[in-house]
Amino acid sequence: MISKAKIKFIHSLETKKGRRQEGCFVAEGPKVVGDMLTAFTPRMLVATEEWQLQNTVIAQRYASILETVTAEELRKVSFLQHPQQVLAVLEMPKDATSAKDNATLPPCHGLTLALDSVQDPGNLGTIIRIADWFGIENIVCSNETADAFNPKVVQATMGSLSRVNIYYTMLPKWLRSLKEGTAIYGTFLDGNDIHETSAPQGDAVIVMGNEGNGISHDVAECVNSRILIPNYPKGRPTADSLNVAIATAITCYHMRSTEE
Amino acid sequence: MISKAKIKFIHSLETKKGRRQEGCFVAEGPKVVGDMLTAFTPRMLVATEEWQLQNTVIAQRYASILETVTAEELRKVSFLQHPQQVLAVLEMPKDATSAKDNATLPPCHGLTLALDSVQDPGNLGTIIRIADWFGIENIVCSNETADAFNPKVVQATMGSLSRVNIYYTMLPKWLRSLKEGTAIYGTFLDGNDIHETSAPQGDAVIVMGNEGNGISHDVAECVNSRILIPNYPKGRPTADSLNVAIATAITCYHMRSTEE
Repeated sequence: MISKAKIKFIHSLETKKGRRQEGCFVAEGPKVVGDMLTAFTPRMLVATEEWQLQNTVIAQRYASILETVTAEELRKVSFLQHPQQVLAVLEMPKDATSAKDNATLPPCHGLTLALDSVQDPGNLGTIIRIADWFGIENIVCSNETADAFNPKVVQATMGSLSRVNIYYTMLPKWLRSLKEGTAIYGTFLDGNDIHETSAPQGDAVIVMGNEGNGISHDVAECVNSRILIPNYPKGRPTADSLNVAIATAITCYHMRSTEE
Repeated sequence: MISKAKIKFIHSLETKKGRRQEGCFVAEGPKVVGDMLTAFTPRMLVATEEWQLQNTVIAQRYASILETVTAEELRKVSFLQHPQQVLAVLEMPKDATSAKDNATLPPCHGLTLALDSVQDPGNLGTIIRIADWFGIENIVCSNETADAFNPKVVQATMGSLSRVNIYYTMLPKWLRSLKEGTAIYGTFLDGNDIHETSAPQGDAVIVMGNEGNGISHDVAECVNSRILIPNYPKGRPTADSLNVAIATAITCYHMRSTEE
């Protein structure tokens, strides 16, 4: 039986304000929670007996913060339409919570993704999953980008949030701070055919823009390689654009495929 | 002022059963409706005066089936959270409605997508948009695949449904009927690295499987080229899989990029 105060606390984590205040966020389901526990410190676990029987080692390790619930009680706590056995309240990494006010700028080594106001939680979650697949360790987001610790984003990452670092910062400032010679790619409808571009030798950033408006003016000024994913056949009427997660996937695939 | 009977009729099109009974479906918003009217016959247009003033030619052409509504009335009719000026009731193509019972099998020329039980409307809509971008004219779906005329799918295609033909059929039967030598690609976790595959010379099919279960046994037996989109770097723990729309995009991009 979980207390009303605890249910209220968990529900407060649905909003960004609540998450910032408490410094924690929610993940749900055996697969996502299992992955997340490898990377984040749990503050509370809410689980059915069924889950506990299947995860005895974890259940024992976190016995002091474990709340046993029935499926019916879990439904009252969960943010999902179909709750799945377990819900974890996890501590947010310091970097993510305080980057806004932080003088420290996010790192840039190897291939990094930068998101300029990606707004849809589903898109952000999918992009984090793509970054995970293509071995991109860091995603640097503009402060206007959706919150990666929003429950919808967390679930859409399918656990990938445990293997990718997310930073929030003033994107143009960060891009201008990068060392000279860093390749900064951005997709534009008037860009050069991506097939003419190969993966860079050194550090590089791929910038992806907002769903409706693309890359903002200030960020576009920092891009030094404007690319385009061409449609086929050329000149045929087609969709106005690709979805931002789709464009991210193709660009990451292309960069990794042309690496030496 | 739109009648209650007409509102009830439109609402009946939210379900697959209703759409099959009436032989029509709904599209919403200026962009999507504008695209759809180039490919489908409208049975009813429901629009605000604002939209009509901006689309005088269309409004005049369809004056006899046009219902003028206020923004408030449109909200009562619409399936969207934020209704957008116009809603169209459109006739479904015969192929799509009757393919199930039809002895005629869908066509296969050039590059064709085949969907084996893709269930999520958002994924299906995104896949239709990808097909449009990569010049794939036909998508052949198993009967278990989500309905392309579901309002959620229609909106997610962003108008691409007007440029891509959708067929529903018994997928294994269709695949077995294809002429000898047709390349049939499918993505599998034990497939060959996609980089080792080039676009085929003749007709080809790319099969994409269900979100949770991948390609079914009967369909897998028809695949003659098992491929895999590798993760980077090899051997590093990563996401279990890519989202089906993401995998579709990368496979289509790869095939188009390696064409001669």
